[in-house]
Amino acid sequence: MPAADPLFEHAPYRLSGTVVAALLNHRQDWALLGEAACAAPYKAPAQRPVLGVRPPNTWARDGDALRLPAGQDAWQVGATLGIVIGRPACRVPVGQALQQVAGYLLVHDGSLPVQSHYRPALRQRARDGCCVIGPRLVPADAIPDPDALAVEVWIDGRCVQRTDTGSRVRPVAALLSEVSAFMTLSPGDLLLLGAAPPAPLAEVGSQVCIRIAGLGELNNRVCAEEAA
Amino acid sequence: MPAADPLFEHAPYRLSGTVVAALLNHRQDWALLGEAACAAPYKAPAQRPVLGVRPPNTWARDGDALRLPAGQDAWQVGATLGIVIGRPACRVPVGQALQQVAGYLLVHDGSLPVQSHYRPALRQRARDGCCVIGPRLVPADAIPDPDALAVEVWIDGRCVQRTDTGSRVRPVAALLSEVSAFMTLSPGDLLLLGAAPPAPLAEVGSQVCIRIAGLGELNNRVCAEEAA
Repeated sequence: MPAADPLFEHAPYRLSGTVVAALLNHRQDWALLGEAACAAPYKAPAQRPVLGVRPPNTWARDGDALRLPAGQDAWQVGATLGIVIGRPACRVPVGQALQQVAGYLLVHDGSLPVQSHYRPALRQRARDGCCVIGPRLVPADAIPDPDALAVEVWIDGRCVQRTDTGSRVRPVAALLSEVSAFMTLSPGDLLLLGAAPPAPLAEVGSQVCIRIAGLGELNNRVCAEEAA
Repeated sequence: MPAADPLFEHAPYRLSGTVVAALLNHRQDWALLGEAACAAPYKAPAQRPVLGVRPPNTWARDGDALRLPAGQDAWQVGATLGIVIGRPACRVPVGQALQQVAGYLLVHDGSLPVQSHYRPALRQRARDGCCVIGPRLVPADAIPDPDALAVEVWIDGRCVQRTDTGSRVRPVAALLSEVSAFMTLSPGDLLLLGAAPPAPLAEVGSQVCIRIAGLGELNNRVCAEEAA
């Protein structure tokens, strides 16, 4: 990791770019939606990436508490690959997309349980500290195939999900290309590939550990949010 | 405008905070949706604020081009009040909400025409340069009632919309309070009250001018986006 590269001076926690998350990006997501994927108002699966922004209030790091508000039973865990942009990316063809990537990060894109995928779910997904980023940025050349990395979710020492970064509707290069078609991505911006379903749920007191092969792990405990 | 206050040193264009926009926040929005407001999958108008984030790639300033991609006939104009946060706001009661406001800005929250309000519309609403901010931040104490400001949209010298900042589902204080319930707002963050419907449309070559009483005006021309 070259210390002279200013990009690498950003510890994940102090990331200054935009964080854009792909939702429903696993092929299995659409199978699990079943008939709902073809219900009104769309009557068909999404033709374009389904995306959401994670603003800075959501950014957290390894060890920070995942705060569950009163009246909520469960934290929804999302273990996803984070794609850190290294060069300005505007309308990039798929074949050149990986050249714009500085490196990869592990991200816990957590939320309150999301049942609906229609209106933007900021109240569930843009909560303080729900997007845990880290523990380190691994340069792209150390990850030859970002679409084939093993992913694990552990809750209280038990492995509850073992998947990989493959089987996506849009793999890393395709996602970056499609997003860059309408939105210029800048160095330091972070694109989230999206977790595999079904999302594990964790309750108050649970210790959640997520891992991606080569990117390390993130450990965070679900805590009850103090009353206002 | 006190020059010593670091908040006011941020020219709008270099705003460093999060921009969160309220959508469908005018009472008339729901009337115009008609039966669609009660169609599947919700079968009722939204019970919570409908929100979207405008990431930094969308930020632009007075005079910048509004770029319409090939195949699109119209730019959708959104003239909205921008509420600049002055103090950290976390779970703020409605009655204290206005105390967290540093001041107000005029914002042109433009987009490609949005027909559906279901999936998050980043492709229409998070385009490069579609959120024009400025021309200046007016301190809160100079705006005694932010919910009663005259708003005008002019296209090519003709007034096409004359409304005000009232009649909102959530007026300024209620919106700030509800958003702060799940998302800590920080000094420099910007909350958009939302435009009044129906949204005026502008075509390539049109000069769009929006005004809010006391906040000045923004002038931007719709241009064809150059091919990739």
